[in-house]
Amino acid sequence: MNILILGDVYGRPGRKIIKAKLPQLISEYQIDFTIINGENASGGNGLTTKNAKELLNSPIDAITMGNHVWQQKELLETIDHFDQIIRPLNYPEPCPGKGYHIFTHELKNKTTKKICVVNLSGQIFMPSLNCPFNTMLPIIDKLRMSSDLILIDFHAEATSEKIAFGYFMDGLASAVYGTHTHVQTADERILAGGTAYITDIGMTGPIDGVIGVDKQIIIENMLTKRPNRFVTATGAVQINGIILEVNDLDNKVSKITRLYKIYED
Amino acid sequence: MNILILGDVYGRPGRKIIKAKLPQLISEYQIDFTIINGENASGGNGLTTKNAKELLNSPIDAITMGNHVWQQKELLETIDHFDQIIRPLNYPEPCPGKGYHIFTHELKNKTTKKICVVNLSGQIFMPSLNCPFNTMLPIIDKLRMSSDLILIDFHAEATSEKIAFGYFMDGLASAVYGTHTHVQTADERILAGGTAYITDIGMTGPIDGVIGVDKQIIIENMLTKRPNRFVTATGAVQINGIILEVNDLDNKVSKITRLYKIYED
Amino acid sequence: MNILILGDVYGRPGRKIIKAKLPQLISEYQIDFTIINGENASGGNGLTTKNAKELLNSPIDAITMGNHVWQQKELLETIDHFDQIIRPLNYPEPCPGKGYHIFTHELKNKTTKKICVVNLSGQIFMPSLNCPFNTMLPIIDKLRMSSDLILIDFHAEATSEKIAFGYFMDGLASAVYGTHTHVQTADERILAGGTAYITDIGMTGPIDGVIGVDKQIIIENMLTKRPNRFVTATGAVQINGIILEVNDLDNKVSKITRLYKIYED
Amino acid sequence: MNILILGDVYGRPGRKIIKAKLPQLISEYQIDFTIINGENASGGNGLTTKNAKELLNSPIDAITMGNHVWQQKELLETIDHFDQIIRPLNYPEPCPGKGYHIFTHELKNKTTKKICVVNLSGQIFMPSLNCPFNTMLPIIDKLRMSSDLILIDFHAEATSEKIAFGYFMDGLASAVYGTHTHVQTADERILAGGTAYITDIGMTGPIDGVIGVDKQIIIENMLTKRPNRFVTATGAVQINGIILEVNDLDNKVSKITRLYKIYED
Ligand SMILES: [Fe+2]
Ligand SMILES: [Fe+2]
Ligand SMILES: [Fe+2]
Ligand SMILES: [Fe+2]
Ligand SMILES: [Fe+2]
Ligand SMILES: [Fe+2]
Ligand SMILES: [Fe+2]
Ligand SMILES: [Fe+2]
Repeated sequence: MNILILGDVYGRPGRKIIKAKLPQLISEYQIDFTIINGENASGGNGLTTKNAKELLNSPIDAITMGNHVWQQKELLETIDHFDQIIRPLNYPEPCPGKGYHIFTHELKNKTTKKICVVNLSGQIFMPSLNCPFNTMLPIIDKLRMSSDLILIDFHAEATSEKIAFGYFMDGLASAVYGTHTHVQTADERILAGGTAYITDIGMTGPIDGVIGVDKQIIIENMLTKRPNRFVTATGAVQINGIILEVNDLDNKVSKITRLYKIYED
Repeated sequence: MNILILGDVYGRPGRKIIKAKLPQLISEYQIDFTIINGENASGGNGLTTKNAKELLNSPIDAITMGNHVWQQKELLETIDHFDQIIRPLNYPEPCPGKGYHIFTHELKNKTTKKICVVNLSGQIFMPSLNCPFNTMLPIIDKLRMSSDLILIDFHAEATSEKIAFGYFMDGLASAVYGTHTHVQTADERILAGGTAYITDIGMTGPIDGVIGVDKQIIIENMLTKRPNRFVTATGAVQINGIILEVNDLDNKVSKITRLYKIYED
Repeated sequence: MNILILGDVYGRPGRKIIKAKLPQLISEYQIDFTIINGENASGGNGLTTKNAKELLNSPIDAITMGNHVWQQKELLETIDHFDQIIRPLNYPEPCPGKGYHIFTHELKNKTTKKICVVNLSGQIFMPSLNCPFNTMLPIIDKLRMSSDLILIDFHAEATSEKIAFGYFMDGLASAVYGTHTHVQTADERILAGGTAYITDIGMTGPIDGVIGVDKQIIIENMLTKRPNRFVTATGAVQINGIILEVNDLDNKVSKITRLYKIYED
Repeated sequence: MNILILGDVYGRPGRKIIKAKLPQLISEYQIDFTIINGENASGGNGLTTKNAKELLNSPIDAITMGNHVWQQKELLETIDHFDQIIRPLNYPEPCPGKGYHIFTHELKNKTTKKICVVNLSGQIFMPSLNCPFNTMLPIIDKLRMSSDLILIDFHAEATSEKIAFGYFMDGLASAVYGTHTHVQTADERILAGGTAYITDIGMTGPIDGVIGVDKQIIIENMLTKRPNRFVTATGAVQINGIILEVNDLDNKVSKITRLYKIYED
């Protein structure tokens, strides 16, 4: 089976390109299961209920989140209505929503796979959620026994924390992939224990901005150190992500390939 | 002309692979000018005088630095003896060393190019040096008038700051390339104004560590939150960097290509 | 002469207590010159033009600011109409407003004093403004020649940076007093060189909140790590500050006394 | 009964003044139980086994720690030999040592009190330990049932986090007192629910340094942004702390008084 995972969908340009291009990507790469990161889908800040529904009209199986998850307050109320939405597991309890979900997914050949999708937030240069390493340690065995595949969106800033988490899960998870920096890294590989790893899968949104935002606004911020209202960038749009090829017999990821598409305006 | 730029050389494994492989890379890619980042060359922490000399026995034209520049205290005394070493320009004055240098470089066809190499440190999640944007603004015109090419090593953590700086210099510098995260990004491109840009060129050193350090040490740190002495990782080594193709007539970068070599132990 | 300096005036409760009690404090302590910090005067976030005028209806001579200075955007337009408002000097130029002002102040005995009020922001755990030490170094002599007294509001988080700045200015400024943490410290003293120093003068606002904000909101934030809309605390109010006694002959501060008043609701 | 609590003992000057003056403070204020913070007792960095023993030769009942607790590595091995030493409770398990201890303490009148001493680390601008609020929540009732008094050293940087924790424990703990900033605050009070509170009790060590370190070294750091080896300051020494008066019948703190002694060299 083939799994498509797309990086942080940013604002209206991100949602629009998903709607326009996802079906043909799924067809082109013979995708069986699709995950996107949705923490920036609504104007760059979180995910409204309306935008969640809009995105789920496209063939998306799961939406992971990140540090922006609660910026649209309504999601606190509505997240539990969406099986597909997964927020960082390491929020302190009680917290609306869930940090992982095991999807029972039927393949084209009518067999089913249990696909566990996990979302975790890093701690370095990030809000002080529970330690992702110590959160994962006591549950990974249980998740392995209940699932055929475990896919972890590790939403974090520091490369050190992301790489360390990849090694930490090596041989235990099917894949650990980073999100949050909005820039795709070129270090995709299969680790020694068989886990697919990449530090960041990148962003799905306007290419000519600064991680989604109009570039002149950010340059002015940098020069003046005074706050500015963020506006989503316009122009050409990118789709960033990865494709995981999974061996249907042993459920191991045999190949991780980066996807970096640019669509002119 | 072709310019080779290599990411943060990490410890003994990094220095060793430079010594072993740089000549053949220069030959293979017909390189005219070579820059490395040397801030981690001595055990991961700064650059000793001895290691600087050792590196400069290889065909290296310039060494840029970063936040680790003064971790080997002796460099404070010796940096001014090395034309080739460039530390972040945005340290407050007075500070030993220099933040840019214009190299007069003779090409194979006997023409000379004035190549200005600049090193700057970001501010986000980094030590509080002077603002890199406001440091560059008043001098860029002067540098442009004195140089044929301007190559800027922007040593920073946050993708937003690096991308914004790239746009800020677009049309003014020949290339802005990031260092510091030790993970190569896949976003290399020529910006609208003609400046070559990449968020991070990656690291030259052990591939199976955590940005250079033994992975078990870092995983233990993450789990226990207790300090550990860092030890350089062993095993396979990577060379990360970029190659810039420059048009000899107008001195514009016509192509930016990532280099990601892995050498088994 | 006696100088009264009050810590960060927080929201409506802060403005109200200033209006109600400042005249009698000035009378009781025979105050000649009054400074307040106004960065939180408008709902905790910056200072509106209207609130600035309202405050200046009370007998206030100068208003210093801090990291919240630009949160009410209109102040960018109106700050230059107010001689009394001083924003951190170490914003990069160009920036509206000014970082110091020399007030020509007539005492009751008809002599005049030139009182220089400076505002600076720290860098540790704060926005990346220019270095306050390197900002002050080249101008302190000029300020000393133009003024009888120099009073510096050092708006910063880390005690180390504040104390170091106090020593840095010892013998050069009349007083260095900290603001920003909203908690008054008990370390007021005259340093060896004659400069009056205190790490933080505290806050003028609701005492039963968390640095101004309703306490239940902050406790919930701490427990859930989810964002909450801040609401100003209610109930009893404090006035925090210092009184500097200045020798009229040599303009030295002879005494620094903390003021910590509590007014029941 | 009277409880004496002293702020972070810094280096040799701190240890020396404890040895010289603690007995007479205990006698003068009729102290029944003494706690010190020891995280900086060995050259500013942690606590060696030797220095722990040396300190415990003075009449000290408990030593709490902080973010520097593991800087002297040997303490990882020896901490479990000291009933009196308490490290932050919110280190992830497993971790040597303990985060609280209930001391059975005999008063002069031969009655005994069960005194629970807790150490917790904040998260804001601090290492990413477990959330102190969520660490305390599930155990506070048990601690209350097993103890007559609960005294919490909340070792943290941000005033907001410290104040919020004070309110969080109001009516549940006997006292919440802050450490870590090395500057005593002037906001001591009994909160509405009966808990004694102060944001920081200050430092026991050299007064003419920067939170313990030679001031010229820190000023040079601030000006140059280059690292320097820290050296403990010399000269006059301060003892900072608080005295809690406890009602022997209901075990409530009836009074919290700051102690701020200066001893010339
Ligand atoms: Fe994002
Ligand atoms: Fe994010
Ligand atoms: Fe580096
Ligand atoms: Fe670096
Ligand atoms: Fe404030
Ligand atoms: Fe502030
Ligand atoms: Fe301390
Ligand atoms: Fe500390």
